[in-house]
Amino acid sequence: MTKFIDVTLPFSADLPCWPGDPVAEIELISSTADGGSCNVTKISTHVHYGTRVDAPVHFVPGGKGADQLTLETLIGPAEVACFETEDKITAADLDGLALPAGTKRLLLKTRNSALWDLPTHPFERDYVAFTPDASEWVVANGIDLVGIDYLSIERFDEPGHATHHILLGKEVVVIEGLDLRQVEAGSYHLICLPMKLKDADGAFARVVLQRE
Amino acid sequence: MTKFIDVTLPFSADLPCWPGDPVAEIELISSTADGGSCNVTKISTHVHYGTRVDAPVHFVPGGKGADQLTLETLIGPAEVACFETEDKITAADLDGLALPAGTKRLLLKTRNSALWDLPTHPFERDYVAFTPDASEWVVANGIDLVGIDYLSIERFDEPGHATHHILLGKEVVVIEGLDLRQVEAGSYHLICLPMKLKDADGAFARVVLQRE
Repeated sequence: MTKFIDVTLPFSADLPCWPGDPVAEIELISSTADGGSCNVTKISTHVHYGTRVDAPVHFVPGGKGADQLTLETLIGPAEVACFETEDKITAADLDGLALPAGTKRLLLKTRNSALWDLPTHPFERDYVAFTPDASEWVVANGIDLVGIDYLSIERFDEPGHATHHILLGKEVVVIEGLDLRQVEAGSYHLICLPMKLKDADGAFARVVLQRE
Repeated sequence: MTKFIDVTLPFSADLPCWPGDPVAEIELISSTADGGSCNVTKISTHVHYGTRVDAPVHFVPGGKGADQLTLETLIGPAEVACFETEDKITAADLDGLALPAGTKRLLLKTRNSALWDLPTHPFERDYVAFTPDASEWVVANGIDLVGIDYLSIERFDEPGHATHHILLGKEVVVIEGLDLRQVEAGSYHLICLPMKLKDADGAFARVVLQRE
């Protein structure tokens, strides 16, 4: 295996935040600079911030929480596909990839990734994401995990949150907020380990790729 | 490789908390049960809670933060050693292990692990941890990462926090709060992925072992 490629955003309070959501707060509650024996950071944030996974219960009442996502899904071979000129990703786009048989994990690199050149940019509504039929395609093709390089797998203001309902209703793991700038299309080994936050609708994740 | 063994505590607000520290708070800020379109969890907690890593800046002013710990240290072969009757772990104990040459990562299973039979137990001061000379041994023997199965690598009320200063002063990665109940002594492949919390003194980590 080759070296690790870290596709996780550094988590800080100045990352773009979903419109209307509370921004993250990060503070030192003990500081060596103020005479404390050690530095201790406190964070206050909702869990759909930075690089994270969605768990089914984000949109499915009674669905599985972030701690129940299976490691066998979160770790394993993955395909990275590039759609660097598209404004949305459709079923036809995914079909056109002609993915290797048995693909279970699919990460999408789009023009979104370039936004991470400035990690503190204002939230961008015109990001690239799945149409609902792309989500149906994922489910129909037995893909267990999808990831994308902006803050939602679903387009902004998608009616009824159809994309999330389709994917999470079938327990597809969704990774949002990937930084795929250093990654080209191809086959990789994915390691996605979310915080084991009991029963939660999402969790911060550290996501790493290795070229197969 | 064999199946994954998850040695991470499920994170919840009722895990034991270091005496005097604020307990974690977890709340829903949007809820389908209350008519929201989705469930959104907010957490407010310091980062030395549950299963986590310490970064050098926890005790070393100007030291590296959690986002700067190297993936090459966090992932790779590890030895698990058992000290199930000892009340503390000394340099002599570690020396007696006769670890394989080149060991870089060492996890310690002690009687602490049994405390996780009741994850909500009150904080236990009489936990097993390193003496300062054990930390000196780790540094002298070129070990880059150590992990233990309670909430500190250092004994309670260790004068001057000697153990932390020795380990973090040499940029040894410290994992605390492991649940090693299902793990026996031997050689494993370790995957420890902490939240990529920028410049922070620690970070929640998801920690997984595979038997080599």
